[in-house]
Amino acid sequence: MFIDALIKNIKEKNNPSVVGLDPKIEYVPSFIKEKAFLEYGQNLTGAAQAILTFNKKIIDAVHEVVPAVKPQIAYYEMYGLEGLKAFDETLKYAREKGLLIIADGKRNDIGTTAEAYSKAFLGRTQIVEGISESVFDADALTVNPYLGFDGIKPFTDDCKKYNKGIFVLVKTSNKSSGQLQDLLTQSGHSIYEIMAENVTEWGKTLIGEYGYSSVGAVVGATYPNQAKILRKIMKNAYILVPGYGAQGGTAKDVAHSFNRDGLGAIVNASRSIMCAYMSDAWKNQYTEEQFEEASRAEAIKMRDEINEALKVM
Amino acid sequence: MFIDALIKNIKEKNNPSVVGLDPKIEYVPSFIKEKAFLEYGQNLTGAAQAILTFNKKIIDAVHEVVPAVKPQIAYYEMYGLEGLKAFDETLKYAREKGLLIIADGKRNDIGTTAEAYSKAFLGRTQIVEGISESVFDADALTVNPYLGFDGIKPFTDDCKKYNKGIFVLVKTSNKSSGQLQDLLTQSGHSIYEIMAENVTEWGKTLIGEYGYSSVGAVVGATYPNQAKILRKIMKNAYILVPGYGAQGGTAKDVAHSFNRDGLGAIVNASRSIMCAYMSDAWKNQYTEEQFEEASRAEAIKMRDEINEALKVM
Repeated sequence: MFIDALIKNIKEKNNPSVVGLDPKIEYVPSFIKEKAFLEYGQNLTGAAQAILTFNKKIIDAVHEVVPAVKPQIAYYEMYGLEGLKAFDETLKYAREKGLLIIADGKRNDIGTTAEAYSKAFLGRTQIVEGISESVFDADALTVNPYLGFDGIKPFTDDCKKYNKGIFVLVKTSNKSSGQLQDLLTQSGHSIYEIMAENVTEWGKTLIGEYGYSSVGAVVGATYPNQAKILRKIMKNAYILVPGYGAQGGTAKDVAHSFNRDGLGAIVNASRSIMCAYMSDAWKNQYTEEQFEEASRAEAIKMRDEINEALKVM
Repeated sequence: MFIDALIKNIKEKNNPSVVGLDPKIEYVPSFIKEKAFLEYGQNLTGAAQAILTFNKKIIDAVHEVVPAVKPQIAYYEMYGLEGLKAFDETLKYAREKGLLIIADGKRNDIGTTAEAYSKAFLGRTQIVEGISESVFDADALTVNPYLGFDGIKPFTDDCKKYNKGIFVLVKTSNKSSGQLQDLLTQSGHSIYEIMAENVTEWGKTLIGEYGYSSVGAVVGATYPNQAKILRKIMKNAYILVPGYGAQGGTAKDVAHSFNRDGLGAIVNASRSIMCAYMSDAWKNQYTEEQFEEASRAEAIKMRDEINEALKVM
């Protein structure tokens, strides 16, 4: 079961955090970019190749520290077919290194089309009767619940069939997330509270040995008060927490998404890890060529900060 | 401006409908499938090649009849990298044939990531200062509004910059769409009504010469009563109407999404056009090899049915 594998990895590494692989070309150190552009040209192919090299080095740097990575599909789609090839190869490389993969795609559609998305990332695509192929081989996918349960069910069906997971958007980390998600309904509950109840309901048949479900939720680190409420509503949901670091969420903020057992949440940081080598804190210690060491050190720092904040909870 | 180009195409073809290109391999006639499998194998590549051939023939069949096509990205992602290559080539072929392209991806994320999605489908991706490339070259993209305006703004920015459009999910055609979208808020308005007000607001700076905005909305044909209300709220929004045909929406149902000028909506049908050759109605007239003629006849029938329903409005 996905959620059990995730928890085992978290326990083994003593680290409830995940590195987001959102590799804009601007993040890639010059020496990698220049080499790729020289070989493939200053075009989408060159950019995609630079990104793949960058990702592999980040994975090399953090794979002993973190239990999982979270590639954001948008940053590969923006480099076209070559970008998506880099996405695919990133998934394969991360898997070789023993990491779990949460594909961040926020996919959503009506039933039959949601089925197609689910096949693309979690299930298998049938070619003819008796022959099917795995496509983009992720362990979990983020999904958007605007369409209600029949847009979610194809994903939970594949979660059961293939031991996969989903994280449903509940309260996102961005500034205008409240425009829809904070609206109060006539029952007195907000949309994010109602969505949290849905997540609990949708995950009931996917609960693993630790009492958590393979149907998790996304709750931004930037909303600690809402996180407290949501943690109580979604007793069995693992919470994926974006917004740590560069977006402003602190270790104290994210602690609200955890349970007293130290489980229940996994915190994502992307830019602060990938671009550690650019920050003032690391510049004096590491050169651009040593960006891997900077990323590894930042991942360890994040792990320690979160574990520290969980101790005093 | 996207919306003006769309309206001009609709007027020229006297047809406010669009063909959805959602090419599951099961839909492809055997003679095309067999040829592709023989050449490329019974695998994702073979399936993707079959789909591309199928799409091209459908485009050949309908391009004189309809103003636009709406490829659903999920059905290409499910065939992996080769599937996405078929998506890209389908876009290029449709453009050559003078069709506008609405990429149906329901993409959504927070600001910087929404920017990446927007670059992938509407804008351009910068490689280095002064060098940028167009990626998947669509004219419009469907987007999901769960994250509020800062998840929408990157798309509307590119709409202005590159003359593109978006269609925001408001009331979707599926059975459980009401689970979130019909919830009544404390203001007495439903979520879909509030979202419709947002769409109006978000589209204000993108209004073209016919009084319509390049920020449109998705309202399912399966909810005619809600469509009546939404048509009134979103005075300047073009409504993309899925759910016609195979999903159960009729010409009378979709008429509610139009204004008295016969404009204001564009109706999508996918399966009923693509699989026309399989239906009892056409089987006696067309062989599998003549599936193009069946699709063309079905597209003409749909055009005439909708225009008829609009006359008696």
